[in-house]
Amino acid sequence: MKNVAIIGASGFAGAEVMRLCAGHPEFEVVFASGDSQAGTAVGDLYPSLAAAYPNMTLEPWESVPSGLDIVFVALPHGASQTIIPKLDASHIIDLGADFRLDDPALYPTWYGHAHTAPEMLDDFVFGMPELFRASIVGAGAVAVPGCYVTTATLTLAPLLKAGLMEATGLIVDAASGVSGAGRAAKPATSFSTVDENFTAYGLLTHRHTPEMQMALSRHTGAEVELLFTPHLAPMNRGVLATCYARPTGEETTEQLLEAMADAYQDEPFIVVSESIPSTKATLGSNSVHLTVRRDDRTGWIVAIGALDNLVKGAAGQAIQCANLATGIDEPAGLAVAGVYP
Amino acid sequence: MKNVAIIGASGFAGAEVMRLCAGHPEFEVVFASGDSQAGTAVGDLYPSLAAAYPNMTLEPWESVPSGLDIVFVALPHGASQTIIPKLDASHIIDLGADFRLDDPALYPTWYGHAHTAPEMLDDFVFGMPELFRASIVGAGAVAVPGCYVTTATLTLAPLLKAGLMEATGLIVDAASGVSGAGRAAKPATSFSTVDENFTAYGLLTHRHTPEMQMALSRHTGAEVELLFTPHLAPMNRGVLATCYARPTGEETTEQLLEAMADAYQDEPFIVVSESIPSTKATLGSNSVHLTVRRDDRTGWIVAIGALDNLVKGAAGQAIQCANLATGIDEPAGLAVAGVYP
Amino acid sequence: MKNVAIIGASGFAGAEVMRLCAGHPEFEVVFASGDSQAGTAVGDLYPSLAAAYPNMTLEPWESVPSGLDIVFVALPHGASQTIIPKLDASHIIDLGADFRLDDPALYPTWYGHAHTAPEMLDDFVFGMPELFRASIVGAGAVAVPGCYVTTATLTLAPLLKAGLMEATGLIVDAASGVSGAGRAAKPATSFSTVDENFTAYGLLTHRHTPEMQMALSRHTGAEVELLFTPHLAPMNRGVLATCYARPTGEETTEQLLEAMADAYQDEPFIVVSESIPSTKATLGSNSVHLTVRRDDRTGWIVAIGALDNLVKGAAGQAIQCANLATGIDEPAGLAVAGVYP
Amino acid sequence: MKNVAIIGASGFAGAEVMRLCAGHPEFEVVFASGDSQAGTAVGDLYPSLAAAYPNMTLEPWESVPSGLDIVFVALPHGASQTIIPKLDASHIIDLGADFRLDDPALYPTWYGHAHTAPEMLDDFVFGMPELFRASIVGAGAVAVPGCYVTTATLTLAPLLKAGLMEATGLIVDAASGVSGAGRAAKPATSFSTVDENFTAYGLLTHRHTPEMQMALSRHTGAEVELLFTPHLAPMNRGVLATCYARPTGEETTEQLLEAMADAYQDEPFIVVSESIPSTKATLGSNSVHLTVRRDDRTGWIVAIGALDNLVKGAAGQAIQCANLATGIDEPAGLAVAGVYP
Repeated sequence: MKNVAIIGASGFAGAEVMRLCAGHPEFEVVFASGDSQAGTAVGDLYPSLAAAYPNMTLEPWESVPSGLDIVFVALPHGASQTIIPKLDASHIIDLGADFRLDDPALYPTWYGHAHTAPEMLDDFVFGMPELFRASIVGAGAVAVPGCYVTTATLTLAPLLKAGLMEATGLIVDAASGVSGAGRAAKPATSFSTVDENFTAYGLLTHRHTPEMQMALSRHTGAEVELLFTPHLAPMNRGVLATCYARPTGEETTEQLLEAMADAYQDEPFIVVSESIPSTKATLGSNSVHLTVRRDDRTGWIVAIGALDNLVKGAAGQAIQCANLATGIDEPAGLAVAGVYP
Repeated sequence: MKNVAIIGASGFAGAEVMRLCAGHPEFEVVFASGDSQAGTAVGDLYPSLAAAYPNMTLEPWESVPSGLDIVFVALPHGASQTIIPKLDASHIIDLGADFRLDDPALYPTWYGHAHTAPEMLDDFVFGMPELFRASIVGAGAVAVPGCYVTTATLTLAPLLKAGLMEATGLIVDAASGVSGAGRAAKPATSFSTVDENFTAYGLLTHRHTPEMQMALSRHTGAEVELLFTPHLAPMNRGVLATCYARPTGEETTEQLLEAMADAYQDEPFIVVSESIPSTKATLGSNSVHLTVRRDDRTGWIVAIGALDNLVKGAAGQAIQCANLATGIDEPAGLAVAGVYP
Repeated sequence: MKNVAIIGASGFAGAEVMRLCAGHPEFEVVFASGDSQAGTAVGDLYPSLAAAYPNMTLEPWESVPSGLDIVFVALPHGASQTIIPKLDASHIIDLGADFRLDDPALYPTWYGHAHTAPEMLDDFVFGMPELFRASIVGAGAVAVPGCYVTTATLTLAPLLKAGLMEATGLIVDAASGVSGAGRAAKPATSFSTVDENFTAYGLLTHRHTPEMQMALSRHTGAEVELLFTPHLAPMNRGVLATCYARPTGEETTEQLLEAMADAYQDEPFIVVSESIPSTKATLGSNSVHLTVRRDDRTGWIVAIGALDNLVKGAAGQAIQCANLATGIDEPAGLAVAGVYP
Repeated sequence: MKNVAIIGASGFAGAEVMRLCAGHPEFEVVFASGDSQAGTAVGDLYPSLAAAYPNMTLEPWESVPSGLDIVFVALPHGASQTIIPKLDASHIIDLGADFRLDDPALYPTWYGHAHTAPEMLDDFVFGMPELFRASIVGAGAVAVPGCYVTTATLTLAPLLKAGLMEATGLIVDAASGVSGAGRAAKPATSFSTVDENFTAYGLLTHRHTPEMQMALSRHTGAEVELLFTPHLAPMNRGVLATCYARPTGEETTEQLLEAMADAYQDEPFIVVSESIPSTKATLGSNSVHLTVRRDDRTGWIVAIGALDNLVKGAAGQAIQCANLATGIDEPAGLAVAGVYP
């Protein structure tokens, strides 16, 4: 068994790591922090975890033991870069955005302030196993990408890599469930605001745009440029990205589907199909569902991907990376079947 | 046209008065306050009202003009009793709880503190037209009951009044949509907390219990005692109350339905039917749907009522009372048809 | 008062016409048909209408009286073209697709079969008042466009008309609530399928694509070509369209917003704002909310519109057209304020 | 590994058995039937299962192999009694109602027709491990109770057994998510009917009433009589039962909570707490959350329980029984942590 700590367990992503560790054959949670909730029993803050962690209390992060096998960090942007330099563990798996971008110059542009630990950016590998597995195996520090980036990148990567779509002029039009906005109570995420509502937000400037561009550029070697428009859908979980690109050649829908399926043929969590993905089919699982179409009438390729934002888009992918980093069977502790309906 | 002010227009009940006034043939809103939002355009706080009130801004309540025809007050409990004594208007329609109970001694018990204007309690009539219409006609001050009280009281009143059910040992088991909890952002009403969730709250001690008992006792002449258990359902609007009582005689389901229908035969907003009420059938309207059953096996009567908590359970009933108070046609400006689906 | 019949009142659009007529100062429903439900009381099929139509029963359409002022027809595609030729009324307002397209050749391509009454296509005017008002005034036959077409067309029309965007390569990425799929019980619209789900459907070939192209081409004089991708969101009502276009010049976001606002400055139901539209702000009303942005980084214009699919996207627009056709005040019987929350 | 067949895998309960078996360390699904869907790939009917069962197709039930370790039967009421007599397996776990009641005379009364295999009723043990564990260990045939029965029975059992509540006059007022109604498309379970709606159904006569009475009577030795009122809440999963009973003595809330906690102190899936249960805390897990209160004012005890209707209320409890029947660790393959939010 690997000893595991979770810093930021009071947030949704951290609590989801708790849930997944409760069913993981090799991970044992020995410490959980939640600073604003320090002193609260895990089961009081999350009754869903009461049966799994009957005797665990959230502590301040500074109490984390040294020398653990794995520390998962699930903090708001900006917090990781101050805390992680002080951690001592064999493997650090960061679910935040602080160590995802390789170019420190991007932080002021997209996040509004300079990075405070730019010298550590190189220590982190990008935690998307399907595209960058080799670098994650045995890694000491992994920056796990979030839900929108994982969805859009896995949807677009194979066809861009194969040179079947143009790398610029791309549109990523996506919708997310509300849990992506975190646990803090805000008017924008109140039930009365969100229920029976569909809206767009973050027009033109959503922070995860440069991550998508970086991951796709790194994977394909091209200079990828895209416009990302997120929407909020009245549901707890799930991200679906509908992506538009211009084809470079004459490949048909069938050929595009085949290229996509080939790229992911050995991946346990990726399903490529002619069926249109839906977020609900992936709920609670680490699976990603993908499809693609070519429209000869208007000359667009439409590629669609769906996943659970808290699993494959956060905690599940973090577990997957931790498995790779520590030499455990990659899918251990992760469901491939969704909770349906 | 009557000149209307709305104090507390930033809350859901106040905003619903704004919506209903926008379609009312005789009411014109000339002032709206929302203290924590003073200075905000109505349409910025409630885009749903942007087209109806393109040029209106929320002001501090102290700016309310004197001598208006009607002032609607939609404030949290405790605020009305300090503000209403300072108002000068022909008709004051209070949507809060401050002037509903006739016995000031009930406030410390159920609300936790003494009433600060007990001498005004007698100035207010209880704004439930179907049971107390005569007192509302022409009234200068009306205390409009809320959603749970209106639902349970209208459901139980006719059979209690006719002596067909025992007045004690009653159970009111009810569920409400989330808008009943108000606009303020709280963890308990976040989308992530409420969506896909059903739970009980306020066990044994919900504040609206004494109002139900008072209204039913006053209407029937009996000393009514009941246990009220509210639940939260994952929806915006609607209250459904399932009430249990012991029969006093041998009346069948058919006879109970007939007694209920007779009591409400001239009411434009009340539908008595063998069909089981559902909250959705009343959404956006001022209608109340009722039914009743007798179970010979266990010796219980089950009576069920449903309505829209923000219309008949708040703003609609307030408009209905204002119509009666000012001599306008009682149903003016109120929909009887629900927005469905 | 105008005498009104509704053919197809058992469907959601027809029932919504019933709801709106119940609150309309000049329209009185004297007949309602619902063939598969003939003999059923309106209030049994739609309890939401029980209080408004306590004594009305659905009849077979053949029983519709002759010589009425207005007949609203709300039938599935294909049914209108067989029934409407047999109707006799001063004004026929068709909510279906049968008489919207002016070119009969489009029906086999997009609907799969030839039109059976092509000679009547010229009798109908296109019922979108904001773009084609003059032709609707006094019209004897109006074909009212549906929710997606109304949303996308009103969103794109002003900037295309002003020559600020390219007319081809357009993308309309839209999401709809479930009521747009009609009342019939299907696995695809079961609660268990839709709740907590977001998915795309009708990729590349949705039937309403040619209507959008026709309406925009007719209004602007350009040959408009667009790709339309509909999605299903877990909510009852609402359509939001996020549209992507290439700018023709250098106009900024502010200039684009101004052009859009100017085009609609006298429209009672259209709100142009820098705020991002949300479907919920329009629920139950006939309002349309619009905004636009220009992204200099990627060279895209993003224009967004939202409305209630059953009101402005169906029954409300039909009432608006009927008002124009019969010489009544255009907004009569239509709410501008949304039911919120 | 145990070889497992699932008959009725096209329904929600059967599909949930499929999901849980995909993560079970000892169960391997070798056969799945779904008669109306025979020939359909599992992943086409349930995309949520596509990654777990990429190559499995639903077959007619008659093709089920003989001599398997376990056959789960998840069929509509009435079907099990004709099919199960023809099955040959070491352990039959029936999720339907056909073999739950021990008195064949109850079937005509509550189900409307006589049982066709009454001689087999004695072969089945009642699959509620917390109350009847000893009889399930090693059993060859288990009839697993459903969601309402499990919730109400586990909520009421300890206090009735301890003699702290009267056994008659009980009220079980419960709400369920929609998945309890099954996968078939019906108007009553369409999204447009259910969303934003709360309603009661099955007044006085719900079929599961006699099961609750039987289980509680058998466990406590008293003759239990109760009235059961189910409601439908707009959510996928979850059952919450609010139960009312008269106390026999003077026990306080604290003493009642302690009695309840004592009764379940060694149960891995049961959480007794002063916190009010909510369905969402149990979603996807096999856990049950319980609480109780005594109201001195009105003389009622209120006891509340919540669980996931498809897990502890169906497939999870079936797995738990199969584990006991086959000698596997009882909680194997079952989550105690809920999927939240």
